[in-house]
Amino acid sequence: MKVRELGEFGLIELIADIVGKSSKHGLVLGIGDDAAAWHADKSIQIGTTDILVQDVHFNLSTITWRDLGWKALAVNLSDIAAMGGTPGYALVSLGLPPDTEVDDIVKLYRGMKAIARKYDVEIVGGNISKAPVVIVDVSLIGKASKTLLTRSAASVGDQIAVTGYLGQSAAGLRMLKSGLKFDRKTTALLREAHLRPIPRVAEGQTLILQGVKAAIDLSDGLMSDLPHICKASQLGAKVWIHKLPIHPLMKSTFKDEALGLALSGGEDYELLFTAKSNVIQKLQNIMSIPVTAIGEIVSDHPGQVTLCDRQGKAVVKWDKRGWEHFKSLRRNKK
Amino acid sequence: MKVRELGEFGLIELIADIVGKSSKHGLVLGIGDDAAAWHADKSIQIGTTDILVQDVHFNLSTITWRDLGWKALAVNLSDIAAMGGTPGYALVSLGLPPDTEVDDIVKLYRGMKAIARKYDVEIVGGNISKAPVVIVDVSLIGKASKTLLTRSAASVGDQIAVTGYLGQSAAGLRMLKSGLKFDRKTTALLREAHLRPIPRVAEGQTLILQGVKAAIDLSDGLMSDLPHICKASQLGAKVWIHKLPIHPLMKSTFKDEALGLALSGGEDYELLFTAKSNVIQKLQNIMSIPVTAIGEIVSDHPGQVTLCDRQGKAVVKWDKRGWEHFKSLRRNKK
Repeated sequence: MKVRELGEFGLIELIADIVGKSSKHGLVLGIGDDAAAWHADKSIQIGTTDILVQDVHFNLSTITWRDLGWKALAVNLSDIAAMGGTPGYALVSLGLPPDTEVDDIVKLYRGMKAIARKYDVEIVGGNISKAPVVIVDVSLIGKASKTLLTRSAASVGDQIAVTGYLGQSAAGLRMLKSGLKFDRKTTALLREAHLRPIPRVAEGQTLILQGVKAAIDLSDGLMSDLPHICKASQLGAKVWIHKLPIHPLMKSTFKDEALGLALSGGEDYELLFTAKSNVIQKLQNIMSIPVTAIGEIVSDHPGQVTLCDRQGKAVVKWDKRGWEHFKSLRRNKK
Repeated sequence: MKVRELGEFGLIELIADIVGKSSKHGLVLGIGDDAAAWHADKSIQIGTTDILVQDVHFNLSTITWRDLGWKALAVNLSDIAAMGGTPGYALVSLGLPPDTEVDDIVKLYRGMKAIARKYDVEIVGGNISKAPVVIVDVSLIGKASKTLLTRSAASVGDQIAVTGYLGQSAAGLRMLKSGLKFDRKTTALLREAHLRPIPRVAEGQTLILQGVKAAIDLSDGLMSDLPHICKASQLGAKVWIHKLPIHPLMKSTFKDEALGLALSGGEDYELLFTAKSNVIQKLQNIMSIPVTAIGEIVSDHPGQVTLCDRQGKAVVKWDKRGWEHFKSLRRNKK
């Protein structure tokens, strides 16, 4: 059945069914009124929004509707994670061509519901509109304790660290777009990385608990996102390229190209943060995912990132290629 | 200069300049980090989102960028008004074709900033993406006291009332689309109604104070929005068509067509509410805009709206024409 045939209100009823009745503490009104409503408490509230546009951020030939739903919420969860916050309530704006299959919207919401359940998020409202391409825009409201992870809190003497591995999502995109064939394990690794990213929400909260102050999520790629920290903190950064965490299957599959994917691939949704080395060591002990020191915050060249080799020699002056969305066509945000 | 030339981050800096440094009490972090953050208090928080898509909800040949900015926030403010809430913080997602003029985005944000200032709203973040058409998706977070205006709270014996006049926005759209020429006063009236709607935020709060329980904003038109109240409250409604508030200039200009525009025109962003007749009388005394009783809530035909003439005789059985977005191409939402 086409969306045009079911009509908007039929579609909303269907979505309300999938989203389900809430048992979330504090919810006053969910889907079905002019706005959603919930009780707040004395913590800091945080809000973020991130839009996915068909043929800009995703292609329906390489992502399923269910994975699209997952990812649309995941990218927002990653922003909440990068603040050290706890996600709470989501509003979902959909733009849909009238010929969209209703069944596909069911799959989209099932994917969103799956990740919402995992992260204790309540989908409380939104709106649906006709549009020339599929648009999924999620706004996510969360809360935080008095401390937030910000981009401006890096200090000289901090090391720079990242969670997980880098470059797999971009490699996955390349695999899906070009129809590359790899062994089952590699295929699964790259596919999951690109289509079903795991936002590091618990890890962001752990960072806060361990006294970390500065963090960002890697949505646009290390070489796009680290400069945000440098600029906001008015400091420079050195990255030790031989330290970048690249998965063994990435290295064996993409060889020399793996480094470029790790540096500028984007959409890893790992956390990049800065902290004293002893804090990073402690985090390496207590976290269940890899935490890797990949560089240091320095006072010279504020706002700039320098890539260094094993001997600490600057090997690349990054030239801003790929930094910005409209120039590079890469997804991006404030 | 094209958006493509300035690049996304240049555009974000420009927007941050327009939006300005905040002095809003409670704001922790505005534009420039992974998410915005603000302190909450013990009240109920409310959230809404509404998307405007080029050539679906607006046409750049009939709306200026500045008015588009105004309207994108106004339609969300109207949803907060319909809950009786106080707006607080806005997140703005933009989808832009790369050829968009940067100057136009400046105008867009100036329009948003103008209405934000008027309603004490802080624009705290958002994101920008490439898109095939212009998309402006605003999420607005506000708060409310313990009482909310809901769609489900109408009671038998309530009268149905609306603020302001009906049908002017749809008439304005027709004028702009078809290039109709009217006298200066009529032109200004219709133009303002369509391009720069005035959300009834203070009025929504007054409704709460006077004990009103049920309300909705008229975004899709009386005959689309009143059934939401009927359905949610599981009651019927009678509308006295001779009582509909139609501006004298509308009557003299559109004659017999004025009634149809008032019934189903949409985008008036007036409040429709139900209350006992003495409450409505009191509201008529204390409000500075017209408040008109236009019908009554009844127990028969739950979910249905019946149009009645001066003698109370049912004259039209409304047949759902124009009710739904995908069927009618009218803008709509949850």
